[in-house]
Amino acid sequence: MKILHVNTANDYDIRIEMGILDRCGEEIANVVRGRRCAVITDSTVRGLYADRVGQSLLRAGFTPCLCTFPAGERSKNLSTYGEILEFLAANQLTRTDCVVALGGGVAGDMAGFAAATYLRGIDYVQIPTTLLSQVDSSVGGKTAIDLSAGKNLAGAFYQPRLVLMDPGTLETLPERTFSDGMAEVIKYGCIQDREFFDFLAARPSREAVMGEIEHVLLTCCDCKRQVVEADERDFGQRMILNFGHTLGHAYELAGHYEAYTHGQAVAAGMVAAARIGAALGVTDPAAAEAIAALIRAFGLPEEIQCPAETMAEAVGLDKKGDGAEITLILLKRLGEAVPLRMGKDAVLAQFAALCGQ
Amino acid sequence: MKILHVNTANDYDIRIEMGILDRCGEEIANVVRGRRCAVITDSTVRGLYADRVGQSLLRAGFTPCLCTFPAGERSKNLSTYGEILEFLAANQLTRTDCVVALGGGVAGDMAGFAAATYLRGIDYVQIPTTLLSQVDSSVGGKTAIDLSAGKNLAGAFYQPRLVLMDPGTLETLPERTFSDGMAEVIKYGCIQDREFFDFLAARPSREAVMGEIEHVLLTCCDCKRQVVEADERDFGQRMILNFGHTLGHAYELAGHYEAYTHGQAVAAGMVAAARIGAALGVTDPAAAEAIAALIRAFGLPEEIQCPAETMAEAVGLDKKGDGAEITLILLKRLGEAVPLRMGKDAVLAQFAALCGQ
Repeated sequence: MKILHVNTANDYDIRIEMGILDRCGEEIANVVRGRRCAVITDSTVRGLYADRVGQSLLRAGFTPCLCTFPAGERSKNLSTYGEILEFLAANQLTRTDCVVALGGGVAGDMAGFAAATYLRGIDYVQIPTTLLSQVDSSVGGKTAIDLSAGKNLAGAFYQPRLVLMDPGTLETLPERTFSDGMAEVIKYGCIQDREFFDFLAARPSREAVMGEIEHVLLTCCDCKRQVVEADERDFGQRMILNFGHTLGHAYELAGHYEAYTHGQAVAAGMVAAARIGAALGVTDPAAAEAIAALIRAFGLPEEIQCPAETMAEAVGLDKKGDGAEITLILLKRLGEAVPLRMGKDAVLAQFAALCGQ
Repeated sequence: MKILHVNTANDYDIRIEMGILDRCGEEIANVVRGRRCAVITDSTVRGLYADRVGQSLLRAGFTPCLCTFPAGERSKNLSTYGEILEFLAANQLTRTDCVVALGGGVAGDMAGFAAATYLRGIDYVQIPTTLLSQVDSSVGGKTAIDLSAGKNLAGAFYQPRLVLMDPGTLETLPERTFSDGMAEVIKYGCIQDREFFDFLAARPSREAVMGEIEHVLLTCCDCKRQVVEADERDFGQRMILNFGHTLGHAYELAGHYEAYTHGQAVAAGMVAAARIGAALGVTDPAAAEAIAALIRAFGLPEEIQCPAETMAEAVGLDKKGDGAEITLILLKRLGEAVPLRMGKDAVLAQFAALCGQ
């Protein structure tokens, strides 16, 4: 087993092991006081893993209950959040009981937000089952739901008690979902770890990455851990994790959160940010093209069309925004990100130039 | 002006002054960075004070926007909470902007929860306009909404940046709403300050209390401040603030949150808890009757009928609960509370004996 300890306000372990799903009960029993346990999952993951998790919880002495919501980002809303809260209350969970988020980022973000706010906060454990959630959303304590005005506009900073990752769950992922996660994997190489970028560039396929998956998961989580520990509540340094995300949010908005996955939007957002960086003389143009090549190798889009007005809307509403300026994350070189304060108009002009508008 | 500084994780001032409503803008400008400001209030308070607050905010350079919800506890739900979040997003508030909660406990709890969770937390300022919210809910950082299963079941610990209290707002309160607040005022005397209990017993009318209102507000807030500073997240000592509340919640449930106000329920809950304490030999019987007399003097009920099964339901769901036992707050004597761990069945038996069931 690989173990990573995260030193946030409430510290916790990330435990990575093939087959840990069948031992999750005993792992959770080590960190949680109560014995009632609400497993929150989606309609897809329920059929794949809920039984194994439930059996392990029963063996460890828990009384599990299962709450399922329809799979997909569209479920990550106020209505499902409310249903989860009512489910926790109906099952009489107390302050010492716990929530287990089983599934991808939607399950983790939403169940985490419910755990953060039910009785003003009860323990929760994350069992991320997608590559994206394992390397990104399960680390760092950001929980959220979407509002009609945009993604992740409501939520809380709330650390889990434990994160359990079973690389075996990645084997059943559809191609597109795996690629989705690779966007964030590639991001860590771009912003923080040149050696890891080269490691990936030498393994430009799902098979090659899966051959070294524990190293990949550990490296990504460790990258994110460093950033999160330095800036738990996202006041400064943590912003570098948003590389590709400001423009990515615009692409998601342009596709009405349906046409493109988060990973696809971030992939194209990273390429755009690298090219804007190159145009501004901040980023080595060769870096931008190396990123674009790696993005393509994993079946991700290097460009997405986005109307200028959608971009303006996304930039205005982006929650990293602060008045008339926003901070765009650019690359100095592969493995090193730099935040750059820019007027919103300047960002839009750069974006327009990039699109030849 | 009377100023009380609260040393919680994020420390803040409580500022008490007749007429401070008309100067709220400059006070808020001293502690908030952004200049966009969402005032959240109810349909009753809007007509009374929203203009004065809005004018002061404009004079101080803010761009205020106003969100109104229907007055009453029934509004304190997931649906209104969602509407407030969407309102903040629609008005493009950023992480440096702020929410102003103007009104009673419902406005404070719900706007505070929205501020705690919008963009994972933006500044908020409380301007409580009822006696209950001035002495209780505006101090301590508890924000919440009700679920269908019970009161305050979802929320967050989140400290305001500033609390402004204008005793002038109490002059327009209906009799019943003023009495409601007196239940919590009396509570502080019971659990923490014998001298203050005697002070109130010597002034058993609204007129007499209003004659010394700044002292009353300051004393109550200072009592609560001490408890909150020692136990910001409600792990132990803060429980004494629940004196009268566990049984009070049952009374509110019995009345479907309509028949009795929070203050009425807490008043009867305090008398019941004192009498249960007397029956258990913990509390001086004379103290119980002194409390009942003061309760009556302010037009509050010393008894409320509650079916045994409603009490059982309330005890089972009470969020202070932890497995098969709950902690009931009893009095050792006037001015000193003691938490007592009791089996839920024992609590129900005591309650049944009290009601002659």
